[in-house]
Amino acid sequence: MLAVQDVLEARERVSAVARHTPLDHSHTLSALTGADVHAKLETFQRTGSFKIRGAANRIRTLSTAEQDAGVVTASAGNHAQGVALAATRSDVDAKVVMPEHAPHAKVAATRSYGAEVVLHGEDYNDAQAKAHEIAAEERRTYVHAFDDEYVMAGQGTIGLEILADLPSVDTVVVPIGGGGLISGIATALEAADREIRVVGVQAAGASSVATSLEKGTVHELDAVNTIADGIATRAVGELTFPIIQERVDEVVTVSDDEIAFAVTLLLERGKTLVEGAGAVPLAALLEEKFDYEAEEVIVPVLSGGNIDMNMLTTVIMRGLVDQGRYLKIRTVIKDRPGSLRQVLDVLADERANIYAIQHDRTSRDIAMSDTEVEIDLETRGDDHVEGLLERLRGEGFDVEVLV
Amino acid sequence: MLAVQDVLEARERVSAVARHTPLDHSHTLSALTGADVHAKLETFQRTGSFKIRGAANRIRTLSTAEQDAGVVTASAGNHAQGVALAATRSDVDAKVVMPEHAPHAKVAATRSYGAEVVLHGEDYNDAQAKAHEIAAEERRTYVHAFDDEYVMAGQGTIGLEILADLPSVDTVVVPIGGGGLISGIATALEAADREIRVVGVQAAGASSVATSLEKGTVHELDAVNTIADGIATRAVGELTFPIIQERVDEVVTVSDDEIAFAVTLLLERGKTLVEGAGAVPLAALLEEKFDYEAEEVIVPVLSGGNIDMNMLTTVIMRGLVDQGRYLKIRTVIKDRPGSLRQVLDVLADERANIYAIQHDRTSRDIAMSDTEVEIDLETRGDDHVEGLLERLRGEGFDVEVLV
Repeated sequence: MLAVQDVLEARERVSAVARHTPLDHSHTLSALTGADVHAKLETFQRTGSFKIRGAANRIRTLSTAEQDAGVVTASAGNHAQGVALAATRSDVDAKVVMPEHAPHAKVAATRSYGAEVVLHGEDYNDAQAKAHEIAAEERRTYVHAFDDEYVMAGQGTIGLEILADLPSVDTVVVPIGGGGLISGIATALEAADREIRVVGVQAAGASSVATSLEKGTVHELDAVNTIADGIATRAVGELTFPIIQERVDEVVTVSDDEIAFAVTLLLERGKTLVEGAGAVPLAALLEEKFDYEAEEVIVPVLSGGNIDMNMLTTVIMRGLVDQGRYLKIRTVIKDRPGSLRQVLDVLADERANIYAIQHDRTSRDIAMSDTEVEIDLETRGDDHVEGLLERLRGEGFDVEVLV
Repeated sequence: MLAVQDVLEARERVSAVARHTPLDHSHTLSALTGADVHAKLETFQRTGSFKIRGAANRIRTLSTAEQDAGVVTASAGNHAQGVALAATRSDVDAKVVMPEHAPHAKVAATRSYGAEVVLHGEDYNDAQAKAHEIAAEERRTYVHAFDDEYVMAGQGTIGLEILADLPSVDTVVVPIGGGGLISGIATALEAADREIRVVGVQAAGASSVATSLEKGTVHELDAVNTIADGIATRAVGELTFPIIQERVDEVVTVSDDEIAFAVTLLLERGKTLVEGAGAVPLAALLEEKFDYEAEEVIVPVLSGGNIDMNMLTTVIMRGLVDQGRYLKIRTVIKDRPGSLRQVLDVLADERANIYAIQHDRTSRDIAMSDTEVEIDLETRGDDHVEGLLERLRGEGFDVEVLV
């Protein structure tokens, strides 16, 4: 099983390629939770996520012959970019297989870090099969995204940085997808002279660990569904699972809405972009998914920031809607002067700011003399939304809430 | 006229309240420009912008009697939050007047920093008049957002931090709204033992300085229109203008599209949220609005990150569209099986990923037997977009580009 010594040995290899990322005390998050919150900002890591650490340690522990033969992996996500840059910085040739419909931004980023991208197949499984084929044919080493002790040890260097920068840490909160990150960190924290609590967080739509822990064996989900694509993994690894069993104190889950809220909060208040998978530790903290004391020194590991810009706009809107800060309504008004005005008067009176108004007289569902109106509004929270809807309905408008 | 000494004296007062923000070397921006780019990340300043520096210096130089009487200002933006927190941290009472329809997020933030918010009037002018009224009635000191030497000196501490952290700096690029920030920085940089170039950047929709410099006197615009609301100012100040004349080497302008691109780039690649006004220096750099040498050490001052989340989603979409990474098209297809399929085949063949498809059979502009289809696509750049449109038109589809 992975030992502290493995992580200590990884340190120099990793630091040759990856950044020692900031551990920032957050006034905002501390005020919101009552704990003493310091965020480990792995989102500012090279390639935008922690994955480069594990890849660097794996690649730099290969023999010269293996390095000359190059590496290969399959990934449509952060691991692709981590392997690409770690290989390039180590003068090792890398091929990354991605599904044919992988997002162009990910393909472009992986290429820009120096890897050859091979587009193959419909999904991740196809890509993985192809990568193993390439590994066999070209004698390249396949770099696994998590189920590899060198990879885990590399990710574990985050734990060493936390100990160095904040020796008083009580609790570290870590996302779990395949389990490589939390295995490495939990192991690294054993270097401390006292017990440090490790809490793992999964997305509710991809939460295989709870069942696995109950059963005592790795449980694979049939399907996963979460906005946190970086941890949308059907099962933890065969090597990571025993480490989680032994060294992780608690595993909790968060919903997509809770994740969206955490992403929006970090962006709006912290000015920092974190992807869904990277925000789950903060979501768990904010929603008190585990117990903690006032003033407890807590480090959520914000593991990465590679979120698709379209996904981000969706997440932001969802975060605003959940907080009652954005409201889209539809109502039907008589198609004559003054009707719209009446609605707008209510909105002005309730101080709801209007973002957009759309008229539609062509909808088939309404009478010819009526007009359908959709209004996008900035609101001040759930109470405001409720009061506003009550007023409009009270004045006789049939209001439908769209989002 | 403001002197280096004023800025040096501001340093301690400012550091009691504000953060010494990071000056980060950026691989990405250096690679894109060929220059050696270090971003001054004032977006991570307390309250999300540099404004707290000037407010702190102004408030901490008030007499005890003036401090006891409190301060007042009018602002719907960053200055409101800066004054609020600077006052609270200095145990001074603050009132901030905002127009009645100010964004709720700004009102809430200003309150959370400890100021009393007074909502008054339709626009900024109304709010300002009210603030002056309050100043007279309650003997409070009115804290001007830029046209005040103490405020300028406070903002200038950014220049001192740049000199301390990067003595080799050649050029500093600074947004201009009212001119307080650039006046302070340009003055601070005179503390260096050699000439450091200062480039000012305005939004094209609020660019009063070029005309003012030509005329030799402050020119006021009739109206302003830009997504960079933090610098949407009709004129620079009477006190800042002579400093700009004397100490700023060049003033350039950037368009809203260029600003949107810069915001998106910083977010997607740098994982850092910067508002429109904060991104103008980077936009000017990327678009080569001023000449610079390869390897030149350039510091864009990214002055703040307080962007409304709805505005942000608009900016992101606009940035993607400009880069040819997002395409929304409308076409009319025969309302029978296979027609839509034919369009989708072309898209699949061209590897354009589909985000959303909307059918509409009710539009009045088309024949009863036809269906209007709107498709949102992820594309790979302008060439890809052009090729795709050509293919579709070549197959007989009448395609309209919506964004």
